[in-house]
Amino acid sequence: MSTNGKVYLIGAGPGDAELLTLRALRMLKEADAVVYDRLVSPEILDLAPATAQMIPVGKAPNCHTVPQDRINEILAELAAQGLTVARLKGGDPLIFGRGSEEAAYLTERGLAVDYAPGITAAQGTAAATGVPLTHRGLATGVRYVTGHRAADQRLDLDWKSLACPDTTLVVYMGAANIAEIALRLMGEGMPAALPVMAISAATTPREQRLVSRLDQIGVDISAMPMRAPVLFVIGHVVSLYRDDTARPLPRVLTEPTVMAGE
Amino acid sequence: MSTNGKVYLIGAGPGDAELLTLRALRMLKEADAVVYDRLVSPEILDLAPATAQMIPVGKAPNCHTVPQDRINEILAELAAQGLTVARLKGGDPLIFGRGSEEAAYLTERGLAVDYAPGITAAQGTAAATGVPLTHRGLATGVRYVTGHRAADQRLDLDWKSLACPDTTLVVYMGAANIAEIALRLMGEGMPAALPVMAISAATTPREQRLVSRLDQIGVDISAMPMRAPVLFVIGHVVSLYRDDTARPLPRVLTEPTVMAGE
Repeated sequence: MSTNGKVYLIGAGPGDAELLTLRALRMLKEADAVVYDRLVSPEILDLAPATAQMIPVGKAPNCHTVPQDRINEILAELAAQGLTVARLKGGDPLIFGRGSEEAAYLTERGLAVDYAPGITAAQGTAAATGVPLTHRGLATGVRYVTGHRAADQRLDLDWKSLACPDTTLVVYMGAANIAEIALRLMGEGMPAALPVMAISAATTPREQRLVSRLDQIGVDISAMPMRAPVLFVIGHVVSLYRDDTARPLPRVLTEPTVMAGE
Repeated sequence: MSTNGKVYLIGAGPGDAELLTLRALRMLKEADAVVYDRLVSPEILDLAPATAQMIPVGKAPNCHTVPQDRINEILAELAAQGLTVARLKGGDPLIFGRGSEEAAYLTERGLAVDYAPGITAAQGTAAATGVPLTHRGLATGVRYVTGHRAADQRLDLDWKSLACPDTTLVVYMGAANIAEIALRLMGEGMPAALPVMAISAATTPREQRLVSRLDQIGVDISAMPMRAPVLFVIGHVVSLYRDDTARPLPRVLTEPTVMAGE
């Protein structure tokens, strides 16, 4: 099968449309069809061409509205029709985004694929709160893991390896399991007082923040449930958080503003 | 001290100007002065206003042209004059970028700071090569560390924690020490045949790639020295690399092209 169709696997970033890359915006503007996850913010969907077909394949936690196999087929069917398809994912398509699975399915069928990387939720959180992911004396590196487990499965993480207090640990999709995650980390020697920040919808007007510590985060999250998805930043860097240095919540993006300044 | 001056701590991304965020470009366009590291690509510096003062403070490995303390002072002096300062760093300012140290220095002096996150070199590498940072069955997470050590210091990394073959390990600034890093990881049980990709200047026309394995990367890098900085991606995900699926090298960015498509 050979057509002029193609699929752009696009990282939509953490939510604020101004955090799209120039490439992501260019690819989105070229799209005949936009296939998007639930986590892509409405501000970003508004940037799609008015003429584009908008196809939600939204994944909610534990509730894949459209199964991955069917998403693959939808992308291939659209591209095989000669369309330019923008596949929009929250964050970066190649970090917890299954972008490489979709790419493999498409390239096996002779369909063209290209990528736009995206700012991760962890990076968006850092920029929004001023809490760095590394900092001299507090964190020599950073690590991203998922705290999600499939139904009836154990959380299968390498706890001994994760219990490294010099590394900032970022847990994606961990709201349901954060109490267990914290317990296991403390069991491997992580300090009970290690600070933890939970954040929901970072960089959007819907952003919520909660600062706690490893031995209290489970209780605190139960007491103040946050809208999924919640990101957890675990590590000494969170001690740098200051409410008064918090960045203002982002403005709604208006395209002429962004494009001005030439 | 209170002025209208401010400092934007901007992630310039991996090199390709099209991987700047919209926010980074906006902030750069507002700048009266641009203070930039050596790793910021010429294509991105070309996007600064023609009227902006251009101030290099370039850091080369083991050779900080301008010491960090002096960089802090330069930023504060410019902002105190009422100028809008774009502080451009490769990658993301809050991952190995010392952005939070600069921010702390400036906010202590009453000077305003804001951030633009940037695509990391690891993400740029993934998008350029098609090698994902996570992938079902190959990597459940990703971790960034630095492989650089100060003169006369030991490489002080938690080898036991790092030896986690289910996590993609990305080593920044490790070219001088990659043979030792590989040996230590194998000593903790990482497989000798684990694939490793080395990449230099990812996403730019100067990009160089080398695919090897843990027990050979030291020799291979000696035989084919690459321009610093070199990034190493260590993990099973590298087995997905296919030369024939490699993305084309990036085009030179021309601003009208990026802004078109409305």
